[in-house]
Amino acid sequence: MNRPYDIAAFRQRIGAIKCEDNPVLVKQKSRDFYWYSPVLKRELEAVTADLVVSPQNEDEVRDVLRAAFALGVPVTPRGAGTGNYGQAMPLTGGVLLNLADMNRVVAIAPGRVVCEPGAILADIDRALADSGQELRMFPSTRATATIGGFVAGGSGGIGSISWGGLRDFGNVLRLKVMTLEAEPRVLELTGAELHKAIHAYGTNGVIVEVEMPLAARYDWVEVIVGFDSFDAAAAYGLALGEQDGILKKLVTVVAAPTPHDYFLRHRAVIPAGKSVALLMIAPHSLDAFHAFTRPFQAEVLLDSSRAAPETLAGLPPVYELTWNHTTLRALRIDPAITYLQVRYPEDVALALVKRIHDTYGDEVRGHLEFVRFNGRIGCAGLPLVRFSTEERLNRIMAEHEEMGAMIFNPHRYTLEEGGMKQTDRIQLEFKRETDPRGLLNPGKMIAWEDPNFDFSANKNFLFAGLEARAAAAGQG
Amino acid sequence: MNRPYDIAAFRQRIGAIKCEDNPVLVKQKSRDFYWYSPVLKRELEAVTADLVVSPQNEDEVRDVLRAAFALGVPVTPRGAGTGNYGQAMPLTGGVLLNLADMNRVVAIAPGRVVCEPGAILADIDRALADSGQELRMFPSTRATATIGGFVAGGSGGIGSISWGGLRDFGNVLRLKVMTLEAEPRVLELTGAELHKAIHAYGTNGVIVEVEMPLAARYDWVEVIVGFDSFDAAAAYGLALGEQDGILKKLVTVVAAPTPHDYFLRHRAVIPAGKSVALLMIAPHSLDAFHAFTRPFQAEVLLDSSRAAPETLAGLPPVYELTWNHTTLRALRIDPAITYLQVRYPEDVALALVKRIHDTYGDEVRGHLEFVRFNGRIGCAGLPLVRFSTEERLNRIMAEHEEMGAMIFNPHRYTLEEGGMKQTDRIQLEFKRETDPRGLLNPGKMIAWEDPNFDFSANKNFLFAGLEARAAAAGQG
Repeated sequence: MNRPYDIAAFRQRIGAIKCEDNPVLVKQKSRDFYWYSPVLKRELEAVTADLVVSPQNEDEVRDVLRAAFALGVPVTPRGAGTGNYGQAMPLTGGVLLNLADMNRVVAIAPGRVVCEPGAILADIDRALADSGQELRMFPSTRATATIGGFVAGGSGGIGSISWGGLRDFGNVLRLKVMTLEAEPRVLELTGAELHKAIHAYGTNGVIVEVEMPLAARYDWVEVIVGFDSFDAAAAYGLALGEQDGILKKLVTVVAAPTPHDYFLRHRAVIPAGKSVALLMIAPHSLDAFHAFTRPFQAEVLLDSSRAAPETLAGLPPVYELTWNHTTLRALRIDPAITYLQVRYPEDVALALVKRIHDTYGDEVRGHLEFVRFNGRIGCAGLPLVRFSTEERLNRIMAEHEEMGAMIFNPHRYTLEEGGMKQTDRIQLEFKRETDPRGLLNPGKMIAWEDPNFDFSANKNFLFAGLEARAAAAGQG
Repeated sequence: MNRPYDIAAFRQRIGAIKCEDNPVLVKQKSRDFYWYSPVLKRELEAVTADLVVSPQNEDEVRDVLRAAFALGVPVTPRGAGTGNYGQAMPLTGGVLLNLADMNRVVAIAPGRVVCEPGAILADIDRALADSGQELRMFPSTRATATIGGFVAGGSGGIGSISWGGLRDFGNVLRLKVMTLEAEPRVLELTGAELHKAIHAYGTNGVIVEVEMPLAARYDWVEVIVGFDSFDAAAAYGLALGEQDGILKKLVTVVAAPTPHDYFLRHRAVIPAGKSVALLMIAPHSLDAFHAFTRPFQAEVLLDSSRAAPETLAGLPPVYELTWNHTTLRALRIDPAITYLQVRYPEDVALALVKRIHDTYGDEVRGHLEFVRFNGRIGCAGLPLVRFSTEERLNRIMAEHEEMGAMIFNPHRYTLEEGGMKQTDRIQLEFKRETDPRGLLNPGKMIAWEDPNFDFSANKNFLFAGLEARAAAAGQG
């Protein structure tokens, strides 16, 4: 296979830094959960790095980046690979920069924690427990995901009902980012500068340290409330979200038949036909929570503070039924399922959710995540879609937009197509500073690869490097 | 002075329980901050109890209530008397039940504190500091106000920007209330039942224990931001309130000339002509706060984390410039000032604030408190009014309502007129249970005193007992 860079020279140059070149293992580390999308699955299946490099500290990261710059080797940083959009997949090969070994919790203070990028979210929370603190938010992949990966590739998750998203001011405190230059520099980003690197997929710097804000730690009570209709569950979820005095970490609503059909280990507590609200409530808010819930036409199916130990035994945490884990559980049973990412504007959220639910019936199965958004309780959707063709999938997304919903396309691997469908000038400018040769995670920032790309033309971006690599692999 | 009850017999009956009958001291303890209102000042000036009784524990409270029931003596519970509506003023005399000596912090747990009703808010927070916790909210009178008085007579305050009001589910966890019956009972209220006694002015039970929810304790940074116009300050306050990731305890906006003219000890940091935002920001949100603030046409006049010790020396806490303390500081300099209590509906808040500000000019000086309200950032107002006549004051309030604002009339001493101007059936029902003789804080609940009162007739309620008492005092 022809490569425009010399991997052997690179290996020699980085000396004793931990490497892996076994193609099976390299390919394994070159994936994320891109296969949630049948489109990305087709497009990215062949993607693999040449080499996985696992630095143990900042100095080793610097050595890797210096060598990569000198030899023109692409570098794709990676945490645990729990993203869903091919974020951490090395489209043109090169080095997969595995940051998982840099996993120390460096410092804990009131309201703050400093970590290396590879620290796993669940481990960080364990380290914080003695201080009575915890992370404000985490993805449903908390058990395996890294803090660096979350900041570089996530947007929010469990906790966003109270705190909003990762991009909101104050939800990341500081990032230490290393540039890919002849002599890599370390930049400290705070305040508004954080937007340069948050959710940039590692395209404009390698995150080598993260400082995150904390919240008070509680033994969150897991609650599942059952409803006879999705609409009723959605209305309840919004109303609960709007209860300012009831402290909660999670408000998810999932339409029947998903809960009974796909949440296998919870099946005993979720009758068929029930739409559910999946909740995490602070223990001292539990009385108020039940008082609030009582007037609704609802049934508390599970309250972990009151359930018998034998009921709870073997149940995964309730948050592992939510966010992208909802899709994961569906996919495990029905590989033909895929999903969308939707935002329903606040003023019409419930009406639009109902209209969409009524329009598609079983083809698009409701899944709502309530989050704070600009000071209000926003309603995001990760509905499950029974996949037939890419054409139909695109049609469904276009119809959503026609009805007034916003789509964040999870079937695209670029920042822009999965996001606001426009150039992020701040991130682009920063890439010019940090990655002048364009070697960091190539192919993910359209604005860099093709400055003239027309977002309004409604065509997918095709990264030439990916095509070339695939062609070369075919020859190779 | 003729009384329909025998105070001497009552004293004898309660035995050794601490009493005070020196008329000067009794009258002192019979007031609150009712004199903020020129209307209440006129109406309530003569009000005084016959006796102040200061029980030391629940058993003594029971003895007092048993004796009061037997002898038909009115009982008005009181914390520190920091309310503004005559809440704790004994309109028909009788016993002023001073709960200030029952001030123990009974228990502290994660998310919870249990107190006796007379515990002072600042003392509770001091007791909580070691646990890394603090009360979710407190009034500007934190240094002197009691927790029981806050729950019985307050509505929210500093902290409501994050947590909403006291009446929201979850912001009071439990109340232990004693009835005024032949044999007083102790009732434990939780969940929805709390609405029976929260903000009922002690008309339907004596609060003998309070359990409150807690939040993480921080060394809040005090910030004052200056603006050239009130509109700009108001827009900033709302926008800051809507920043979900910036943790704050207070967002107040006060129009010029109030800040420079009335905040005397802060005068050196607040130039004449500046409207200000008065803020408490969590230390770990400070970077984000400044990044958010930078694009506004604003000047940070004070940041307590960066100010020189000599600048901070002698300054009262910033929250003592806000909520009802704004009015207090104005009144100290200009006794002709009074105030309103307004809510501006979310969808039109800023436009309505501007319209009102433009309408009245210097006669109604803007003062906004941003609070969470049903999941959104609400905008409440405590504008200062240059008082001329009661007629004009009433006209201004009526005009506010015509323009679409809600008025909570602080110039009335009844629950209903200061609130929703309608019968609160839950509180009325509860009074029937807890106070069958109608001896608890008489005259404050119209629904009890005059079930046929017509709220739509736009006439003030006049409590017959108050008139009778005044007449008797005149004769006496």
